[in-house]
Amino acid sequence: MTKTTNRPTTKRSSRAAPAVPAPAAPVIEEREPRGARRKRETRARLLDAALRLMAEKGMEGVAINEITEAADVGFGSFYNHFESKEAIYATLVDNVFEEFANMLDRLAGGITDPAEVVAVSVRHTVLRARHDPVWGRFLIREGFSARAMSRGLGQRLLRDIGNGIAAKRFVVADPFIGFLAVGGTVLSAIAAELNFVAPGASAAGVLKELGFSGEHFPERTAAMLLQTLGLKRAEAEKIAARPLPVVDEAVEEN
Amino acid sequence: MTKTTNRPTTKRSSRAAPAVPAPAAPVIEEREPRGARRKRETRARLLDAALRLMAEKGMEGVAINEITEAADVGFGSFYNHFESKEAIYATLVDNVFEEFANMLDRLAGGITDPAEVVAVSVRHTVLRARHDPVWGRFLIREGFSARAMSRGLGQRLLRDIGNGIAAKRFVVADPFIGFLAVGGTVLSAIAAELNFVAPGASAAGVLKELGFSGEHFPERTAAMLLQTLGLKRAEAEKIAARPLPVVDEAVEEN
Repeated sequence: MTKTTNRPTTKRSSRAAPAVPAPAAPVIEEREPRGARRKRETRARLLDAALRLMAEKGMEGVAINEITEAADVGFGSFYNHFESKEAIYATLVDNVFEEFANMLDRLAGGITDPAEVVAVSVRHTVLRARHDPVWGRFLIREGFSARAMSRGLGQRLLRDIGNGIAAKRFVVADPFIGFLAVGGTVLSAIAAELNFVAPGASAAGVLKELGFSGEHFPERTAAMLLQTLGLKRAEAEKIAARPLPVVDEAVEEN
Repeated sequence: MTKTTNRPTTKRSSRAAPAVPAPAAPVIEEREPRGARRKRETRARLLDAALRLMAEKGMEGVAINEITEAADVGFGSFYNHFESKEAIYATLVDNVFEEFANMLDRLAGGITDPAEVVAVSVRHTVLRARHDPVWGRFLIREGFSARAMSRGLGQRLLRDIGNGIAAKRFVVADPFIGFLAVGGTVLSAIAAELNFVAPGASAAGVLKELGFSGEHFPERTAAMLLQTLGLKRAEAEKIAARPLPVVDEAVEEN
């Protein structure tokens, strides 16, 4: 699962269809009554539509009938699956970030250096946003919520920073501000990736005008964060450039 | 726009109705034809309503009729003042951030140390968000836009970092990522201020549970940023704790 390679995680998330690993799927579906399958599919369509709409406009900016129209299901069906707009949003946050955070945990499970754990997690997060801009936009919106410190990716980041401090690998005079700095930089990097760095980004020209380059962007972000956490520049850059553990596609996909 | 008042900026955003200050207004208004005054007031009400709504829901999440209803003006009147939702949003961004950035420029005009310029600007920005949460929320929303690097506060920050690097006061191996780190940390600090640190913040309990304190929050944020820009911790903390130049409220108000 954590086999090492230099290939980015491109493959996994760029595929359009949410494929279930081929051998397992038929077995489940054959046993599943037709109604249950349709219900599951409707729920998935609602979640998919809500994610796209809420990534673009935020939870407050989306009406339930917009979700049902985009999902091509009847308005009333919404309430067979979710109690409210807040409920579908909460489910999305869980699905989208808890699962990704779990994947990062599995990925980093074999890494003993807390600095490399942070570097690998940050690089994977930026790459995921590159390959799945809707996910990235949703993360930017949710990242500054009051929940961000006690759940999902924020909670893991806080834990990983704490581990590094406990192991005396990180030197952070002010852990609260250190967490805000690292979290804010990741969100800012994702916004920059979507706006400026990605090929075809709407404002890619701005970067060039300013004389900046978007090369090796995830690695440079990780190197900066490790310096924020107290590592010297040379070591931070070395760790940030290490081969990235590969994501097990069957595990990450959800 | 630059008329003098002693009212703190707190009032402005916490008031429910978009009141025009009663005592100051008549002097100007006597000279002004009735129609022009009403037009100006309507425009101000539309901007005020749009700011509150868009800070909460984002530009995409707000409909023009919501703005006119909140401003208590007829739907059609909107188009006497603004061509579109995008146009009122652009005016807000100019009003809200360009003016504040100009105020920071005046404030920091007498400061020669680039490190103190950044520290003072960051502290004032966090304090402004504290006193005017609507402004803070609007800044968080706009801060990750594609415009953020070429306009307003982002543009000034980029310039201030560049000045410090040119003066060899800042040591930043990667100025693009350095800018993203500083900008992202400021936005993250503002979100934390609104969610956790401010008295009565919705999630103030989370901070306590985690064993973190919100004391001297603007100064601690500035100290962290100066370290990101290459200053040693002791010096960063000293500069971040210097007396803050006072804002001319007449200028800050807009």
